[in-house]
Amino acid sequence: MKELKGAVLFGQSGGPTSVINASAAGVFIEALNSDLITDIYGAEHGIRGILDERFFDIRKEDIEELYFLKNTPSSELGSVRYKLKNPEVDDTDYKRILEVFKKYNVRYFFYNGGNDSMDTCNKISKFLQAADWECRVIGVPKTIDNDLFGTDHCPGFGSAAKYVATSIMEIYKDAHVYDTSLVTVVEIMGRNAGWLTAASSLGSLKGNGPDLIYLPELPFDMNKFIEDVKKVAAVKKNNVLIAVSEGIKDANGKYISEYSSNLKRDSFGHAQLGGVASILAGIISDELNVKVRPIEFSLLQRCAAHVGSKTDVEEAFNAGRMAVKYALEGNTDNMVIFKREPGEDYKISYELLNLNLVANTEKTVPLDWIINNGTHLSKDFADYALPLIQGVADYPLEDGLPRFARLKKVLVEKK
Amino acid sequence: MKELKGAVLFGQSGGPTSVINASAAGVFIEALNSDLITDIYGAEHGIRGILDERFFDIRKEDIEELYFLKNTPSSELGSVRYKLKNPEVDDTDYKRILEVFKKYNVRYFFYNGGNDSMDTCNKISKFLQAADWECRVIGVPKTIDNDLFGTDHCPGFGSAAKYVATSIMEIYKDAHVYDTSLVTVVEIMGRNAGWLTAASSLGSLKGNGPDLIYLPELPFDMNKFIEDVKKVAAVKKNNVLIAVSEGIKDANGKYISEYSSNLKRDSFGHAQLGGVASILAGIISDELNVKVRPIEFSLLQRCAAHVGSKTDVEEAFNAGRMAVKYALEGNTDNMVIFKREPGEDYKISYELLNLNLVANTEKTVPLDWIINNGTHLSKDFADYALPLIQGVADYPLEDGLPRFARLKKVLVEKK
Repeated sequence: MKELKGAVLFGQSGGPTSVINASAAGVFIEALNSDLITDIYGAEHGIRGILDERFFDIRKEDIEELYFLKNTPSSELGSVRYKLKNPEVDDTDYKRILEVFKKYNVRYFFYNGGNDSMDTCNKISKFLQAADWECRVIGVPKTIDNDLFGTDHCPGFGSAAKYVATSIMEIYKDAHVYDTSLVTVVEIMGRNAGWLTAASSLGSLKGNGPDLIYLPELPFDMNKFIEDVKKVAAVKKNNVLIAVSEGIKDANGKYISEYSSNLKRDSFGHAQLGGVASILAGIISDELNVKVRPIEFSLLQRCAAHVGSKTDVEEAFNAGRMAVKYALEGNTDNMVIFKREPGEDYKISYELLNLNLVANTEKTVPLDWIINNGTHLSKDFADYALPLIQGVADYPLEDGLPRFARLKKVLVEKK
Repeated sequence: MKELKGAVLFGQSGGPTSVINASAAGVFIEALNSDLITDIYGAEHGIRGILDERFFDIRKEDIEELYFLKNTPSSELGSVRYKLKNPEVDDTDYKRILEVFKKYNVRYFFYNGGNDSMDTCNKISKFLQAADWECRVIGVPKTIDNDLFGTDHCPGFGSAAKYVATSIMEIYKDAHVYDTSLVTVVEIMGRNAGWLTAASSLGSLKGNGPDLIYLPELPFDMNKFIEDVKKVAAVKKNNVLIAVSEGIKDANGKYISEYSSNLKRDSFGHAQLGGVASILAGIISDELNVKVRPIEFSLLQRCAAHVGSKTDVEEAFNAGRMAVKYALEGNTDNMVIFKREPGEDYKISYELLNLNLVANTEKTVPLDWIINNGTHLSKDFADYALPLIQGVADYPLEDGLPRFARLKKVLVEKK
């Protein structure tokens, strides 16, 4: 192992999760333990902050507040959706990044995000190699969508899945309270992968789950959907609970959420916003002539740290720590992945996978886990997902309200 | 105190809450302690179950499962929205109720609900008195809306307020993560009283609350609203968080949610459903040309027992117990109310108020608590509401999922 002395740069990217800050805490706390690491920088708004040289000085933070990050949802440093161009087409950003890395002697770069962010991380890694700037680059996975290739699962998924399963069970209780009919349609995030929507099926293990679940892995047929609902309604006194992924598409690849037309304007002539739950609820209302209720979990499914999975929080924290450890050992150009150990008891090991293999490959729900004519999940899914929602994450309170990390966020003076 | 021997009948009514079952547990467990009480009946779907003689035999339940009710959301016996006619117009239902009460020797009747349910309870109480059937009738308050007259607050409000305050803080974190603009509009329950929407202001105590809050207590002016949002947007880089009650009305008394016109149909020609958040978000999108996101808390704000207030759960439980105690002591024709004791430390006593005074009077947020030109809440509100969200309610888990009460629900044979 060759010792490399220099600064750490860390950035958060893509949609926030309940536990992305836990990975930040892991990176920072591990970095603080090493004599090889000089400065520790947190980029504001990911790549954006690197290009603009806006770095928070993490050494100025209180260590206790860094630990509070473990249970603070969303991306505390700020996130970004910024797609780097292909360097062969336009390498302006890459040259700028190299310039900044040299100026601040960045020798360790950790980037925390999902598919797109790993693509960014990969491109930067390759450019730095070609430019002969020695810098160890490690991606830290994150996404509630759970669609990153090569890892058993992704930090962020377990907590989001726990939110979805818990909330769907509570909604089941609420939606079955009257002796009148009600069809409830719950919309869950996931454009192309149905992992999170599938998590609603865990409620069915306790008898409080959806009757029908639709994932984007299979084409969505409106006529079949209406028939599915009618069948359940007939045996359940018109009381039906449906979970549906925001990303369901018809056989032609058109998103069902796009079925909503320009006619959706209010009496002012203003545009109306609405998702797939609202569209499906409208259709069911007309077809079955029953009361319907569309529900969108919206942002809460990715930021509800108050119902976080302890397993997820600890794994996210460890993913950050392991990224730093692996980098200090000389590794680069990889992402940290989780490997599930064989055996009865759930256990994972933290390994590495080359960024080339990770970037831009989506992992979807295995088709043979989707059962009941495309409307539910098999026991295989429950066996896979249940271990990921175990344990109650700490959620420190103050005055009965969430006690989030209070970072000073001291900006480093530009060099 | 005159001893009265007979059966207890208990019913749940109106919209469910996180803690209505805690009151049921209180009634049942206290009733089990008394030698004067013969049978203990739980009416299925409230009044509906009384008219239909559908009673669960609570003595057949395991005591441990009754305790699990304390943390099981929604109305476990089933709820109902059934308005009794004025007995002077049509006393059919009342005669039927009297008949049933005599048949089952119901001498203690406890009805758990909000405004309408207390009206029902009051009418039944008065009819039984006039008919000379000795029966002690006590109402047990419940409503997330917190709008019952004569009580400091209502069971159900504290947990819903805690859900709203916690979720709004998490959403604040999520909605402020990008360096791009976003206006988020969160819709909160409360048709005529803004208590629950006001609870969003608690997040502002920690710097993670809404910029603008609109309650139904004041008329909603669309032009002022747009100006309010523009002002905040100008100083906060177009990043604005708005909390709004579902029940806001314009100066003519028209609900803003009704501004949505018939034009709201999708490409199938089906009706589109959407609430006030969606309407306001559409207007802001057009007026400010910024990204907007409407969020409805929907059912979860009243059934999210996973973030319940321990204070609320215990008070709801005690309200049930006290109803039974007061009835055994000879009281009737009253509702249990909470009286806040003077002094620094929060403490309540459980007292009684005649049902005549409670029924159909709505308690709204004091207008002088609404500040900032009708867009925020004063410290008076925080002082009032903070004690009600204190403590973390138990939320037993099994396999990482909610462990709700498992009642046998043995139906009593019809007499």
